[in-house]
Amino acid sequence: MIAKAAVLARFREPLEMREYPAPERLKAGAALVRVEMAGICGTDVHLWQGQLPIPVPVILGHETVGRIAVLGEGLEKDWLGRPLAVGDRVAWASSIVCGTCYYCRVKRQPTRCLARKAYGISYCADEPPHLHGGYAEYIVLLPGTAIFRLPESLATESVVGAGCALWTVIHGVERMGIGWGDVVVVQGSGPVGLAAVAVAREAGASRIIVTGGPEHRLERVRRFGADVTIDVEAHRDRKGMVLEATPGGHGADVVMECVGHPAAVAEGMEYCRDGAKMLVLGQYGDAGPTPINPHAITRKQLQLQGSWGFEPRHVLGALEFLERSGGRYPFAGTVTHRFGIEQANEALEATRTWASGKSVIVPKEAISC
Amino acid sequence: MIAKAAVLARFREPLEMREYPAPERLKAGAALVRVEMAGICGTDVHLWQGQLPIPVPVILGHETVGRIAVLGEGLEKDWLGRPLAVGDRVAWASSIVCGTCYYCRVKRQPTRCLARKAYGISYCADEPPHLHGGYAEYIVLLPGTAIFRLPESLATESVVGAGCALWTVIHGVERMGIGWGDVVVVQGSGPVGLAAVAVAREAGASRIIVTGGPEHRLERVRRFGADVTIDVEAHRDRKGMVLEATPGGHGADVVMECVGHPAAVAEGMEYCRDGAKMLVLGQYGDAGPTPINPHAITRKQLQLQGSWGFEPRHVLGALEFLERSGGRYPFAGTVTHRFGIEQANEALEATRTWASGKSVIVPKEAISC
Amino acid sequence: MIAKAAVLARFREPLEMREYPAPERLKAGAALVRVEMAGICGTDVHLWQGQLPIPVPVILGHETVGRIAVLGEGLEKDWLGRPLAVGDRVAWASSIVCGTCYYCRVKRQPTRCLARKAYGISYCADEPPHLHGGYAEYIVLLPGTAIFRLPESLATESVVGAGCALWTVIHGVERMGIGWGDVVVVQGSGPVGLAAVAVAREAGASRIIVTGGPEHRLERVRRFGADVTIDVEAHRDRKGMVLEATPGGHGADVVMECVGHPAAVAEGMEYCRDGAKMLVLGQYGDAGPTPINPHAITRKQLQLQGSWGFEPRHVLGALEFLERSGGRYPFAGTVTHRFGIEQANEALEATRTWASGKSVIVPKEAISC
Amino acid sequence: MIAKAAVLARFREPLEMREYPAPERLKAGAALVRVEMAGICGTDVHLWQGQLPIPVPVILGHETVGRIAVLGEGLEKDWLGRPLAVGDRVAWASSIVCGTCYYCRVKRQPTRCLARKAYGISYCADEPPHLHGGYAEYIVLLPGTAIFRLPESLATESVVGAGCALWTVIHGVERMGIGWGDVVVVQGSGPVGLAAVAVAREAGASRIIVTGGPEHRLERVRRFGADVTIDVEAHRDRKGMVLEATPGGHGADVVMECVGHPAAVAEGMEYCRDGAKMLVLGQYGDAGPTPINPHAITRKQLQLQGSWGFEPRHVLGALEFLERSGGRYPFAGTVTHRFGIEQANEALEATRTWASGKSVIVPKEAISC
Repeated sequence: MIAKAAVLARFREPLEMREYPAPERLKAGAALVRVEMAGICGTDVHLWQGQLPIPVPVILGHETVGRIAVLGEGLEKDWLGRPLAVGDRVAWASSIVCGTCYYCRVKRQPTRCLARKAYGISYCADEPPHLHGGYAEYIVLLPGTAIFRLPESLATESVVGAGCALWTVIHGVERMGIGWGDVVVVQGSGPVGLAAVAVAREAGASRIIVTGGPEHRLERVRRFGADVTIDVEAHRDRKGMVLEATPGGHGADVVMECVGHPAAVAEGMEYCRDGAKMLVLGQYGDAGPTPINPHAITRKQLQLQGSWGFEPRHVLGALEFLERSGGRYPFAGTVTHRFGIEQANEALEATRTWASGKSVIVPKEAISC
Repeated sequence: MIAKAAVLARFREPLEMREYPAPERLKAGAALVRVEMAGICGTDVHLWQGQLPIPVPVILGHETVGRIAVLGEGLEKDWLGRPLAVGDRVAWASSIVCGTCYYCRVKRQPTRCLARKAYGISYCADEPPHLHGGYAEYIVLLPGTAIFRLPESLATESVVGAGCALWTVIHGVERMGIGWGDVVVVQGSGPVGLAAVAVAREAGASRIIVTGGPEHRLERVRRFGADVTIDVEAHRDRKGMVLEATPGGHGADVVMECVGHPAAVAEGMEYCRDGAKMLVLGQYGDAGPTPINPHAITRKQLQLQGSWGFEPRHVLGALEFLERSGGRYPFAGTVTHRFGIEQANEALEATRTWASGKSVIVPKEAISC
Repeated sequence: MIAKAAVLARFREPLEMREYPAPERLKAGAALVRVEMAGICGTDVHLWQGQLPIPVPVILGHETVGRIAVLGEGLEKDWLGRPLAVGDRVAWASSIVCGTCYYCRVKRQPTRCLARKAYGISYCADEPPHLHGGYAEYIVLLPGTAIFRLPESLATESVVGAGCALWTVIHGVERMGIGWGDVVVVQGSGPVGLAAVAVAREAGASRIIVTGGPEHRLERVRRFGADVTIDVEAHRDRKGMVLEATPGGHGADVVMECVGHPAAVAEGMEYCRDGAKMLVLGQYGDAGPTPINPHAITRKQLQLQGSWGFEPRHVLGALEFLERSGGRYPFAGTVTHRFGIEQANEALEATRTWASGKSVIVPKEAISC
Repeated sequence: MIAKAAVLARFREPLEMREYPAPERLKAGAALVRVEMAGICGTDVHLWQGQLPIPVPVILGHETVGRIAVLGEGLEKDWLGRPLAVGDRVAWASSIVCGTCYYCRVKRQPTRCLARKAYGISYCADEPPHLHGGYAEYIVLLPGTAIFRLPESLATESVVGAGCALWTVIHGVERMGIGWGDVVVVQGSGPVGLAAVAVAREAGASRIIVTGGPEHRLERVRRFGADVTIDVEAHRDRKGMVLEATPGGHGADVVMECVGHPAAVAEGMEYCRDGAKMLVLGQYGDAGPTPINPHAITRKQLQLQGSWGFEPRHVLGALEFLERSGGRYPFAGTVTHRFGIEQANEALEATRTWASGKSVIVPKEAISC
C-alpha cells in the first residue's frame, strides 16, 4: 500500500503532499493504523512556524483516531488489557517515553522523560517507516505506544475535538488540584481553555470566569458551563471585571492560564486572590522572559504550577470523561471544519486565524496498492 | 516611668532619640514589657529607606524579648495557656490580625488579614500609647497579642538571633513542604538563608547547597549544616556549580529563595530539576517586575510557592525548635554586635552593610520615673 | 414575650412542652431569633435515647432557620460582614468554640475545641436564658455565634432540608479530598448519604454507587445523581454487586461511610480498591469496638479518614452551594413532613422510623407577651 | 557450578540443605549473583510458619547483597544507569512487577501489582533456575530486576542490617507524610521500629516516643535517636506514659505502628491526638479481625494510612540514606549474629526469639564445579 501524507519540509512554507509505503510487515508490538481523522492542534501552527526545535521533513498530527490495519506480532491487547483486532477503532497517547531515565524512574515524571518522543512532532519523515504523524492516510504506531480501543458510543469527533488539550488539562488539574467550591478564572477560550472549563466544572468549581475571544468562542465556553465571559478585545479594564465577578472582589481561588502568550502569566497573577493557585499551562512555546513581579508571589502567597504534556492515564481519563459526559460538554460539536489531506494547508490556516472551532483532516480513502 | 526610644521620623535620615511615658495603667488584656533585647531585621533597613508604605514617626523593632512589667486586667495566661506574671521573660508574635475578615475567616490565611498590623512597623509613635516598637526601653503589647513565656533554658540571644527569619521560614516550609530526602538549594546566606538551612535540614533534606556570601556568612551556614556553599561573587558559572552538586546534574528538588533581589527568582528556577518546588520567600520589598521565562514553569512543571509572614503557631514552633536544637543550630552565636538604644543608627548600619551576623539593641536600664 | 419549647427532660421519655421568657434585653453581641423552621436530625434521636452524654433538661434542635427579633449591642454584621437587621432571615453554625485551646490555636482544628458547645445539644434549659435549642418559638444566639443572613433566593426548606448533614459532608470531603474522575461508593441513603452524593458529584466523582434503603430513599439518591443504587436489605451479595459496578471489579477509589452502624466500616473497606480512601463520617455515636481487619489497611494501602462536625466556613460553603445548585440537588424537596412544636414527639418518631425524608418543626406563631 | 541452598520444603519443619546448578548461561537481562550476605527478616519466620500462601519448596531470603558472577546479554547498567560489571557488589529490590496491570498502569501503585513476585517468597525452588532466594550461595536475578551497584563506602552490613524494613518505612512515610516538628510515637522496637525512628527523625519529628522491648532493643532505638522509650512488658499504664510524654498530654501528631500484632492498631489509636495520622505499617500477616472502635476515627478525625512493600526508588532512597547517615544511624551494628547456610535454622530461630539484633547468613564460599 501507498499512503499519502502532508509533509512539513520547510518551516513557514506550505506542506507538501508526499507518498510513503504503508508497511504490511511490522516490528513485534507495532501497529499500522488507517487514519480516520486527525486534529489540527494550535501547537501544529507553532511547529509549522519553526518555533520549536523539531526535525524536518515531518508529518504533523498528534491528535488522531484511526482503525487498526495490521497488528505486529504480540500486540494483542490495548493499554487497558482489552483485546485488539484488525478493524478496531483506536486512539493513542501521542508520546512515548523510555521508562528508564531519571525522570521516568526516580522522579515518576514520565512527561519529562529525557528521551521522550511524540508522533507528529519528533519523527523525521525521511526515516523508515516514515509514517509517524496524523496528517496521513496511515500511521505506524511503535511498540510501547499506549493504544486505546474506542467504544462504539464514543464518536471520533469527540475524541479529536477534545484533542490533546483535554489530556493536557486533566494532567494539569491533577498536578495543581481544584478544591470543592473554588472560584476559577480560565484565561483563554481556545481548545485548551474550553477543556479547562469542562474539567474545572467537574472538579468542583463553583463559578467559572473566562477571559478570551472572539465572541463565537466565548459563546461556546458559555455552552460548556462558563458563568461569566469577558472579551479581552472589548474591555480595557478586564482586571476590574474579573475581580468584580469574584466573591467580595478578592480574586479567584484558582487561575488557569490557557493562552500561551507570556504576558498572560503576569495578568493571571492579578486575577488571583491571596493564597490562590495558578496553573501555568499554556506556555508551550519558548518566547523568552516576560516581566513578572515576584513580590506578588511572596506577598500574595501564590502557588504557580506548571504542567507539561500528559501520560497515558490522562488520555484514558479523557476518553472515559468524553464517554460519560458527552451531553454536558459537546466536544464533538467543536469540530467545525473538515479538510482532505490535500487541503492540510487550509486546515492549518483555519486554525492559525481562529476561524474554526476545531479543524480536522479526514483522509477520503486509502490508496490501494 | 519614662521610656527612651529610637524613632524613625523621616525616611533615610538618622533615627532620633525620644522619650514617651511608659503607661502603668493599661487596657484590659494589654501588657507593658521592659525590652531586654531587640533585633535589627533586614526589613528594618528597607523600612528606614522608605521602601514600604508605613506611618512615621515610628519606633522600629519587631523581633524583641523583654520582661513583663505590668499586666492589664484579665491578662493571666500566655498564648499556650501558661500563667503569666510580672517579671516573666517573654517573646511575642509581632503581628496582630483582626480575626474577622475574608482572609482570617473564610480562607484561614491570617497572614493576609486585611487589617493586619505589626509592632515596629504599623504604629505611629505620635499616637498613645506610643511604645509599639522594639527599639525602646518599654513596649506596650495590645490585647490579643500572642505572648509566649520563655523557658529558662532558652537564651534571649537564641530567640532574637533567629528572629522573624526563623518564623517566616517555618511558615514557608509548611506551605511548600519538603520531602524526605529532597536535595535543597538555599539562595542567600543571611538570617533567612541561615534559618532555611536549619529548617530544611530538620525537614528531611538529604543535601543542602547554599549560594551566597560573603565568606564569613558561608562559613556560618556550613556550621549550620550546609553541604556545599558557593560564593556568588567569586563564581560566574554558579549555575553550573549548583547543578553539578545535584544528583546527575539534573537540579534540585527544592529551591528556597531567601535573597530578596528580584533576579534571584529567575536564577533559582534554573537550579530546579523538572518537577521541582521553589519557595519564593525573600521578595518582601516591591521592586517591580523582573524578567522571568514562564515557558520554564510550564515545561519544567515547576511549582513556585510564595509565603508571607507567620502566624503565632509558627512563632511557637520556632521557640520549641530553638529549645530542643540549640546545640545543632547555634542561633545565639549569630548575635555578633550589640548596641545601646542611642546607637540604633550604628546598629542599622551594621545590618545594612552585612558587617554583623545579627545586630541587636540592648537597652541598658529603664529610666525610673 | 413567652416562648414555648419542646423539652427533653428525661431520656427515652416524651418531650414536654414548657415555656420560657424570651429575653428582650440581651448581652452585647447576642441575638434573639424567632424560629421559622427547625430540622429533626438523626442525631436528635440518639440524644433522645440517651446515647450521648448531654445535660437535661435540654431543648433539642441544631438545624434551624429564623428571623432576627432582637439584636444585642454591637451585633451589626453577620459572619461575612454583611449588615444584620431585625427581621432578617438567618441561619447559623450550631457550634461555638473557645478560640484559645490547643486544638483551636495550635492545631487549627476548631471542630475538636476542648470547650466546644452546640445549640440543641450542650445547653441545659434550666439555666437562663434557657432558649438554646431549635425546638422552640425563639432561640437566643450567644455572642460569637457565626450567623449568616440568608438571601431571598434561598428557601428555608433548602437550608433545613440539607441540614447539618451537608455541613458535615463538606467538611469531610475537604479533609479527605476527592479526585477528578474518582469512582465513589456512598454507604447510606439518609440525609448524610444524600449530601454525600451531591458533594461527591460536584467534587469530581465519575461514578457514584450507593448502598442503602429503603427504596424511597434510593429513589431520592438517584434523583440526586447516584449512578447505581443497591438495596442493602434485598441483596445478600452486595459486596459483589458493588465491586461489579467499579472499573474492572477492582473496587472504588473512594468510599464514604454515612451509615453510623459500626459494621459499616469493615464492609466499606471491602468496597475499596487497593490504595483507596475511605471517609469514616457516620460514626457519631460510640457503640464500642467492632471487628476490623487491620491487615487489609496495610495490604490494600488504604487511607481511612475521620471527620467531626464542621466550622462556620463549611456552613457558608453549604449555603452558597444550595443557592447555586438548587435545581440539580433539590434538598428543599426532602422536607416531607412538617409538625408544630406540640407535635415534636411525632416528628422525632417519624425520623426514628425513617418514615420521612426530613421532618421539621414549624412553630405556628410566637406567643405575644 | 553447584550452589548450596537452605530450602523451606514443609512449613514449620527445619529447612533442608539442597544443591542446584548455578547457571552460567542466562536469559537476556538476567544476572547470576554470588551471595555475600542474606538477612533474616521477621517475615521469614512467618513464612516458615506457613502464615502466608507461598509455594514450597522455596528458598527464603529477600534482603541480600552479593557480587555479580555472570551478566546476561544486554544487562549493562544498573537501575540508575551506572555501568555494571562482573564482580560488582550489588543489592536489588526484592520484588518484580508486571508494569501492565491496573495497579501498575492506571493507579501508579506498583506495590499492589496484580502479578507481583518477590525473591525469597514467590518462586518455587523446583522450577528452574531454582535459585531465587537469598539463603543460598548464588541467586539468579530475572530480567527487569532493579539492581543497584553499591558504592565502596557503603558496608554490606549496613544494607542487610537495615534490610527491607528501611525500604518499607521510607515508602510508608512517603505515603503518610510527617510534618516538620511532629511528635511521633513508634510502636515496636524491632527492625521496622528502628528504621521508623531513623526516618522519622530525618523527616522532621521533634520528639520520638517508642513503645517496645526488650530492653536491649530499647537501648538501640535510643542510640538511633528515640527521646523516650517505654517497655511494654514493664508498664501496664503505657497509654498514660505515652500521653504524658506528648505536649499537654494531648497525644502524638503521628503514630507509626511497626508491631504486627493486630491489637497494636487499637492501642496506637489511643496514642493519637485528635487530628493525628497513623501509619498502619506492620500488619503484614492476616491474623483476622480485631476489635477497633470506629467512633474514635470519626470523633478524633484520625487518618489511618496503610502501606505495603516498596518500589525500587525506595530502595534507592534507603541506599543513599545509609551512605550519608551511617554515623547517625548505625544500622551495620544491628547485625549481631552471623550464620553459615547450613545454620539457617539457627538463624531463623534467633530471629524468632528476638535474641539477635539482626541475624544474617554468610555463605562461606561457593562450591566450584
